[in-house]
Amino acid sequence: MSIKVSGVLEKVRKEKPVVHHLTNWVTIYDCANIVKVFGASPVMAHAQEEAGDMVKLASALVLNIGTLTVDFVHSMKVAAKGANMKGIPVVLDVCGAGATKLRDDKSLELLDVAKVDIIKGNASEVARIAGENVYTKGVDAAKVNKDLVYVAKSLAAKRACTVVITGKEDIVTDGSRVFTVKNGHDIMGCVVGTGCMAASVIGTFAAVERDLVLAAACGLACFEAASEIAAASSGGPGTFKGKMYDAVFNLDGETADKMSKIAVSE
Amino acid sequence: MSIKVSGVLEKVRKEKPVVHHLTNWVTIYDCANIVKVFGASPVMAHAQEEAGDMVKLASALVLNIGTLTVDFVHSMKVAAKGANMKGIPVVLDVCGAGATKLRDDKSLELLDVAKVDIIKGNASEVARIAGENVYTKGVDAAKVNKDLVYVAKSLAAKRACTVVITGKEDIVTDGSRVFTVKNGHDIMGCVVGTGCMAASVIGTFAAVERDLVLAAACGLACFEAASEIAAASSGGPGTFKGKMYDAVFNLDGETADKMSKIAVSE
Amino acid sequence: MSIKVSGVLEKVRKEKPVVHHLTNWVTIYDCANIVKVFGASPVMAHAQEEAGDMVKLASALVLNIGTLTVDFVHSMKVAAKGANMKGIPVVLDVCGAGATKLRDDKSLELLDVAKVDIIKGNASEVARIAGENVYTKGVDAAKVNKDLVYVAKSLAAKRACTVVITGKEDIVTDGSRVFTVKNGHDIMGCVVGTGCMAASVIGTFAAVERDLVLAAACGLACFEAASEIAAASSGGPGTFKGKMYDAVFNLDGETADKMSKIAVSE
Repeated sequence: MSIKVSGVLEKVRKEKPVVHHLTNWVTIYDCANIVKVFGASPVMAHAQEEAGDMVKLASALVLNIGTLTVDFVHSMKVAAKGANMKGIPVVLDVCGAGATKLRDDKSLELLDVAKVDIIKGNASEVARIAGENVYTKGVDAAKVNKDLVYVAKSLAAKRACTVVITGKEDIVTDGSRVFTVKNGHDIMGCVVGTGCMAASVIGTFAAVERDLVLAAACGLACFEAASEIAAASSGGPGTFKGKMYDAVFNLDGETADKMSKIAVSE
Repeated sequence: MSIKVSGVLEKVRKEKPVVHHLTNWVTIYDCANIVKVFGASPVMAHAQEEAGDMVKLASALVLNIGTLTVDFVHSMKVAAKGANMKGIPVVLDVCGAGATKLRDDKSLELLDVAKVDIIKGNASEVARIAGENVYTKGVDAAKVNKDLVYVAKSLAAKRACTVVITGKEDIVTDGSRVFTVKNGHDIMGCVVGTGCMAASVIGTFAAVERDLVLAAACGLACFEAASEIAAASSGGPGTFKGKMYDAVFNLDGETADKMSKIAVSE
Repeated sequence: MSIKVSGVLEKVRKEKPVVHHLTNWVTIYDCANIVKVFGASPVMAHAQEEAGDMVKLASALVLNIGTLTVDFVHSMKVAAKGANMKGIPVVLDVCGAGATKLRDDKSLELLDVAKVDIIKGNASEVARIAGENVYTKGVDAAKVNKDLVYVAKSLAAKRACTVVITGKEDIVTDGSRVFTVKNGHDIMGCVVGTGCMAASVIGTFAAVERDLVLAAACGLACFEAASEIAAASSGGPGTFKGKMYDAVFNLDGETADKMSKIAVSE
């Protein structure tokens, strides 16, 4: 089975969904801008008084705990419950899970009080949320001594959601189907923000495609294919960033289909 | 009547005014950097304990409600009252007005408790603040079924201030004079931050020029002319951003005068 | 005596230290990214519930009061005390000291409640913290009518720490030794973020080198040498930024040693 990513990409550009974020302060611009250059409409609002109202205008919600506080997580809960009521997908980037007790506790709290449709993180973050005894060194991935597909599938089954583990090869699963995205370039790991942007891309694609495994895999393949194009003419991680935005903006469906490398297994 | 923008541009570079901001977390870097590359001195301080003190060093104050909270708006009021006392211009970017009740309420509260000298927004945001029954889809402009010049002039008259509606053609009016700025490039709408930066540019020019209609129009014309120069050699919205900063930094008065397209009507 | 910067640079790349930040919202991305492109691992966490836990994973702590609030400084104290317990270096960027009473008071409070190993600022900021009667115009340096080496040495002696004054020539001293770094390019002063990034670079180098005067001087020399390389092919401050990240990422030890200009005096 071969996946055509162009269909979902073109839906993003045609429908221009509003993607609401409660995200971290480090990469908030990048999260907004990646949504924008894909042709959709980002919005960020974290006041507890309006987080629920803003969700009513949105087609997806992206939560990221990268610079969480207790108050901020409270607003996330308000937004997530609103998203559940409206029936739009909720993406949770468990950024830095495993680094501190607060991150672990608040991630689990969010998963308990609202329906999260897609859990996304790197190997050690997702392993930690899955209950593995893994500790991360800050926000960069630590080594996980377990089969990652097994970890992802188990967590997806337990939480009845889609799980995405990003890395050299991204794993996307709903507990039964497993899509592996083999696009990307090493330079993505040398610049701050690519992980957070991946969650925003997944939210953007999930806003227009109800099959969330397909949505997440297509979003990652497009983002990473564009990154490959950008990396080819970059002098390093600094100029890569600007060129990556250009490449996403200019990515046509045909190129996306030709470049995407998504492997499907059951 | 033909407007020379170079006079105000050169005053910015000579006087290097401090422009104080209470702005949103998404584009805060861009707001600071656009002020800096124009040759002025940005500062951002939102603690209620110092918002008023910092205003004492400033020649203009820019408020932007893009990621407002109740506490943050409280600090904005402190800063705006301090600016009023000192007699420096206050710019309010009603970012996202029409999207949620909180944004509408807090925008109107700010207008009521302090003198705002320039209200700035896109068509639907300004229409909403003017009392029109318009709702926006997040932070991107929605369609407004009214004559925008009429909306802007009415609001300017009602609030005794200058009103700026940004868009393909920017409208700047104090209720009697109307300046229309016809510079700019479509790519500006494809990247996050150009709207917020426009407010910071207006604040920077208002810091050195007491005729606020002239100040706002000249600021927008320079910013957008530089964007035209940058767009001409950009591969997309990512590389555009860096080149736009270069073009603003390198913009000379002669080029600015030659490129600026400001139409004046009474 | 000639200083080889390559030794410390290579240690950063080999050890990839985690550098924890409680920094400002304007340049938070740049602070993270400069650490990343040097090959280390940035983390940002400001919740008082986790600021201390995150420090346990880190090899250095960078504090920056650029957009301080009372609550935020409380978290800084928690983090700084944790860093002191663990014995890792604490860098304090007294960003905007001299501009408001809050910044002066909170800087001194931080210096009183925890051991700060490196105080960093521009001439007027450091002079203010040293007790001079200097007031700054926002966050840009004001003129100081005192011998800066004397100011730095006195403060270093008084606080038993290393003091860094950045500027055309950077002064680094522990009260007895004085290293002067003569690298850099004027364009660095025309773009927002280079000052804040300098503090993050100092933290990154201090994470791997116990001689903090040597660490700070080597970090600044590498950062500024890379900036010289980037400036040579930039069209202005916008494109400079991307190229600077590339140049830091690509800087090899040999080039760094050849380009660095560190003068040593006792």
